[in-house]
Order: sequence, then structure tokens, then C-alpha cells
Amino acid sequence: MKTIINPDKPDWVNVLKRPTQTVDDIEATVNQIFDDVARNGDQAISKYTEMFDGCTLNSIEVTTEETQKASALVSEELKKAIQLAKSNIESFHKAQKTERVFVETVKGVKCWQEKRAIQKVGLYIPGGTAPLFSTILMLVVPAQIAGCKEIVLCTPPNAKGNIANEILYTAQLCGVTKIIKVGGIQAIAGMTFGTETIPQVYKIFGPGNQFVTVAKQISTKFGVAIDMPAGPSELLVVADTSAHPAYVASDLLSQAEHGADSQVILVTDTLEFITNVQNEIEKQLEQLPRKDIAQNALKNSKAFMIESAEDALQLINSYAPEHLIIATRNDDFFVNNIQNAGSVFIGNFTPESAGDYASGTNHTLPTNGFSRAYSGVNLDSFTKAITFQKISEEGMLQIGKTIELMAEAEGLQAHKNAVTLRLNDLK
Amino acid sequence: MKTIINPDKPDWVNVLKRPTQTVDDIEATVNQIFDDVARNGDQAISKYTEMFDGCTLNSIEVTTEETQKASALVSEELKKAIQLAKSNIESFHKAQKTERVFVETVKGVKCWQEKRAIQKVGLYIPGGTAPLFSTILMLVVPAQIAGCKEIVLCTPPNAKGNIANEILYTAQLCGVTKIIKVGGIQAIAGMTFGTETIPQVYKIFGPGNQFVTVAKQISTKFGVAIDMPAGPSELLVVADTSAHPAYVASDLLSQAEHGADSQVILVTDTLEFITNVQNEIEKQLEQLPRKDIAQNALKNSKAFMIESAEDALQLINSYAPEHLIIATRNDDFFVNNIQNAGSVFIGNFTPESAGDYASGTNHTLPTNGFSRAYSGVNLDSFTKAITFQKISEEGMLQIGKTIELMAEAEGLQAHKNAVTLRLNDLK
Repeated sequence: MKTIINPDKPDWVNVLKRPTQTVDDIEATVNQIFDDVARNGDQAISKYTEMFDGCTLNSIEVTTEETQKASALVSEELKKAIQLAKSNIESFHKAQKTERVFVETVKGVKCWQEKRAIQKVGLYIPGGTAPLFSTILMLVVPAQIAGCKEIVLCTPPNAKGNIANEILYTAQLCGVTKIIKVGGIQAIAGMTFGTETIPQVYKIFGPGNQFVTVAKQISTKFGVAIDMPAGPSELLVVADTSAHPAYVASDLLSQAEHGADSQVILVTDTLEFITNVQNEIEKQLEQLPRKDIAQNALKNSKAFMIESAEDALQLINSYAPEHLIIATRNDDFFVNNIQNAGSVFIGNFTPESAGDYASGTNHTLPTNGFSRAYSGVNLDSFTKAITFQKISEEGMLQIGKTIELMAEAEGLQAHKNAVTLRLNDLK
Repeated sequence: MKTIINPDKPDWVNVLKRPTQTVDDIEATVNQIFDDVARNGDQAISKYTEMFDGCTLNSIEVTTEETQKASALVSEELKKAIQLAKSNIESFHKAQKTERVFVETVKGVKCWQEKRAIQKVGLYIPGGTAPLFSTILMLVVPAQIAGCKEIVLCTPPNAKGNIANEILYTAQLCGVTKIIKVGGIQAIAGMTFGTETIPQVYKIFGPGNQFVTVAKQISTKFGVAIDMPAGPSELLVVADTSAHPAYVASDLLSQAEHGADSQVILVTDTLEFITNVQNEIEKQLEQLPRKDIAQNALKNSKAFMIESAEDALQLINSYAPEHLIIATRNDDFFVNNIQNAGSVFIGNFTPESAGDYASGTNHTLPTNGFSRAYSGVNLDSFTKAITFQKISEEGMLQIGKTIELMAEAEGLQAHKNAVTLRLNDLK
């Protein structure tokens, strides 16, 4: 972690630069696999599963029997934990339901907005060393509340052709429609075009490595929506001496262990606090199984000493962190004035991992500064707002002239004519 | 307009295909201009304005004096029309405000969601034959209600270096922060990177030709959000003999006059109605100044005779129209069951042009089948939802164990440790 003291504002852009990666090499591979899957469907899917996951499958769709067997192998203790997390995520996302918005803007001109579920959604859950079953909760629970009809989950099999028990348990608990053993670029291509086994979907959600990330970007060229552009995960902690250095260190490390390209940032008002946190990091790091990953992430990371709270706030808003922990005497100042952040954790007993798993908020959040313009995944991510309008004869008499004048001024005579015809019949 | 009678469902994909355009050639030009603007700022902007708009400008920022002069030249009648439209759009978008969502998911675990404005937004308004001032209302009104701090408007100057009076009047009426005389790819590049004169923004809204569309797509690679992917405008009318063929024809034509690549579709249950509408189209077409454009668009267009209302509904949901007019005896059936549409117009006195200008709904809508997953522009398009959580000591005792178990099962020891440290202090 590099320490930076009261940086000048013109330097912020440079000191806040995120570690970047180029994706140009990957695009060619993605395009080639997309083309193959679009043409050859399941046959292409099998080919890439053999190539990348090293396994040959008779059937890529997970059976009910398989799910039942896997679920039986998950400990009761973990099942209860997953159920409590699910219940909290449900409460928080159910509360996000909005009623129909109805306004009669002018007498006889009734306008309303209704949210309707996206009918077919696809979720990608990475495989690899850790089974990220928590992400299933974060995506399937709101999809169910929204009323999505078809919820497809793709996740890569291991070399033996299996999916982690926790993933299968959580998927069936939440009510996924179909679980498919397919990962990487080929999974995203499959959900983009549809194959004999994989349903075509309208929107794709979920995290993944750089191949999956680029594949999701490319899928948008074919009319599929995605949850948000992805980048490495990140955490900014703003803390003063009212915070515990050991807690702050543990939070920074919990972000750093995600990947070598993760970034963690500490903003505080004394050098002493930075030193204390760094000492704690050294101590805690020794105990971590993912020590190497965390150490690499810490190389990208920075500790800022900034005396003025106003400047600290501005710097945080410039950076636009995915996760923001606020542990200061004047929490309210930061809470009330933060403009750009994905999810905010307030006080000494609110570690980021609470939101990652069980508080109820969603953990699929905008990285890479996207929180300036993007929301994290929420109930609305699984719906779209449709507007409706119904105009009576009286309503047309009220606004017809306005429409005629505006259409004419825009040079759109046929737009005007659609009103003129009706107005003539009403006169 | 091609007539298609009761098409088989497997053929729907083909008969509903939209006219497409390739953008590969354009991408190279866009990349080159983006690179130039990123490096050379205003100097590059001036160069492209000379090249594409044929004018040399001393200053690209519109002055207050210029706006005042232009406003004085707009007729009082048109001003009143614009003001009425503005007032309706305001009522409808103000009603879309949502309160903070607050849930205590477990005792001591407080979670909430708040919408905060996107601080800097950029709007693109095309130049060309018709000054699309109505789009300014559709974008600036919700941006103001959301509380966006900086609202930048870019629009190309004509060969004399001027902007249409109506555009300047509407921009100042709505409270645009800065109006810049710049169009095309260079405008989008300017708002993406920022130049000496053009502010960098977080999200870009607004319509444009295929160059602007591709430029907006490319801007997302540089971390800028966009309102939605764009495509040619389209309208689907579902009507039966309770509708007036003349009205239906006028609505189809008002869409067809937008551009030669527009698409209009009629779905009805008798051949006779199709014939009546087609006769009306022939008649009305003769009177239109944009007859050639409309005629070309009609070549891409189709009239479906489908006997079953259930099948008609399914076809409409498959197509996912941007604009949907429902003028049938059983309007409610379609209104209640439509899943994919941008904006819906109900009954004989609700032409699409009402929503284009003055009913109060937004006219920036998902084309190209994107209404399966995207909303039209609405108040939320100018905000992002941030989640907050605050956990008390009691709350940590309630959910700590759950977090530990889940983090451990995902192999994320540092995530677990952030909780264990806190739990140990509480024991």
C-alpha cells in the first residue's frame, strides 16, 4: 500500500487510476466462439467444454436427481445460513416494489407507468476454486420477486463434469428454471443465441473472468442486455481514530483476497492511523490462505492522508468506489453527501462481508467508477418500465393544438396530420 | 406494405426481422475521431466541425445573448405549446419519484436504498432538416427533477454556425447548463473525454444518426454510460374494425416519415381492414412533404392478418415494439398482457404523436426489440440507486455466524475473518 499525503486536486485523476487490462486480444477469440455457437449450437458448446473445462458430458442440463443428491451433501448448518441470507435478501428486495405511477396530466389525458418483468433472464456463476453460491441468492431472489418467467443458470463443470453441491442446493432453493453445465465464453454465447439445450435470454447477469466480461459486452451487439459492465472489485474505507485499525485492516484484506487485480483504498486524517492499519494488515495477512492474491492486490492499493473531511469527500466522489465503508465520528457527513458509490457500509460493526452475504443488500455492484452512473443490481434490474397513455375525445381537444404546432415546427407533417384528422372529426 | 396472413409461429422470427444495418465500417472512423479528440481537445473538435458541418466558429459555446436573441424569434403560439408540453412531462416525471426504501432485515441490521442524481449528464440533439426541440423537453425535464448538477447539450451548427431558434429557446426554458455547438462523432467524443470547452459527463442521452449511435456505443468502452442502444424507430398498431382506417393510416405514416429505415406494422383480424388502411395510406401519402421517406419505410413494413387475439398478442410480444397502438374492442386484453413494448397508446384518440410531444410520457424509447429488457427514458435514467447498511453490535451477533459459514464455504477466509474479529470483541 502506497501512502499519499494531501494530494493536490489536479493529481487526483492520476493517483486514483485503477489497474487496467486490455481486452483487444480477447475479442477475436470471443467473436470466433460466438460465431461457432450461433451456427452449431450444442455441438459447439460440447467442443468448448471439452477444450476449456476438460470434460465430456452426455447431457449439459442438470437433472433433478443430481440436484437432490448434491443438496443432501450440504451441511444443515450451511443450509440454515443460506436460508437466513435468502430471507434477508428477500425482505430488502421485496420492499423495492413500486406501484403503478398514474397521472392525468391534463383532463382526459391519462398517463401511467408500470414495471413488467423481463421474461427470460440468464445468470452466469463462475466455477473455479470457490463456489460462489452467494451470487445465486443475489440474482435469483430479485428475479423471482420481479416475476421473471424463465431463469437460466449457466456454470462451468469441473473436470469430472460436476457442479459444486452448494451451487446446486442454492439454485434449487431459489427456484432456478434450468441449470446448465457450461462456462466461459461459450455459456454467454449459448444464452445470446440459444441452442438446442440452452434457452435464449433477454438479459444476462453475473460475474466472471475477463473472458466472460468481454463475452457479455459482445452479447449486447446481438440485442441482449447485461446487468452492467464489469471490472475488478474494489473497496474504499474512510476512517478516523474512532475506527479500529484491526477491523479496517480485515475489511481491506477481505477485498484484497478477491483477486490480484482488486484495489483497496484507505482515506484517513492522520498518518498514525495509516501506520496502525498497515501493521494490522501485515499481522492478519500471515494467517490467510489467499495471502499471495491479497499481497498482489495490495501493491495496487493506496492509503491517503487527507486532513479536510470536505476534501476527503470530494476524493471519494471522484473515485466512485464500488464498496464504501464509512467509520468516522462524522458518519452522517459522508452518508448525506456521497454521490458516487455502489454500496455503503456504516460504522464499526458493518464489514463489507455483511453485504456480500447476508445483510440483505445486493452484492452485484458497479466497479471501475461506474457508480457515477450505474446502480447495483436491484429489483428494477429484472423489470422494465412501460408507459401507457389513454386520451379521451376531451383530452385530444385539450392537447391537439399543442401537438400540431410542435410537429409542424419540427417539420413532421404526418405527425401533425394524425392529430388534425382526429380534431376535424371532433369539431 | 406486405400482407401476411396467419403466419406459422416458427416463421415469426423471419417475418418479424427488422431492417438491419452494418456498423463495422463506421467503427474505424469513430475510433480515429475519438483518439484525436482525446489527444487534441477543442482543436480536434474545430477541425471536424469544419469538415462535417462546413463552418468555422470562434467560440463553440452558445452565449446567453445568442439564446435570448433566438428565443425572441420563436412565435408566442409555439412557446405556449412548448410550455404546455413541458408542464405535462414535468407532472408525469415528478410522479416517478421514489422514497427511500428502508428495511431492518434482522434486528440491528438496517438496510436502505436511496436514489441519487447522476451529477453530470450530456444530451445530444441532432441538427439536420428538422430541429428536434421536443427531445430537449424529454431529456432535460427529468434531468432537472432528478437533480443532475451539470446538464450539457451538444447539437451541430448549420453551415452559418447557428443553432435553430426553437432548440435554443427550449434549452434555456428547461435550464440546460451549457449549450455547445458541436455534432456527430466529435460531440460524443468531446463529452466522453472532456475538452477545454466541453465538460466530461458520466452519461450520454439522445438520438442521432448511425455515426452518433456507434459513437455512443464506443463511449461506453471509456466508462461513460448511455441511455440505451439505438435503432431505427418503429410502430406496431393492433386494431380491429372498431378502429378508424384513416386514423390507423395516419399513425402508421407518422412513424414512416421518420426515416427510410423506420418500420411500421399493422396487426388486425380481417383482410378487409388491411385493405381499408392501405387505401387510406395511399390517399394521405400524397399530401406529405416527406412522402419519399415514408414510401421507403413502407417497403420494410408489414400488415398481418391474425384471427386469434391470443396469437396476435404473442406476435406483438415477440416483436417487442418501441411504440404500440392498441385500438381494439378488447383493449384491456392487450394492455394487461403486453410484456414487451416501450410506450403504449390506447384507443382511437391516442395517436403516437401525442406521446411524441405532449401527453407527458417520454418519447426516448427502446427500439430494435430492446423493449424486452430495457425501459424507455424515465426519471430513474438520471439517477442511480445506492444501498446503505448499518449494523449494530446486536445485529452483528444476529448475522455474524451466517456470514462466517458462507464465507468459509466460498473459500474466502479474509471475508470470514472480518466478522470473526468483531464477534470475538463482542463475546
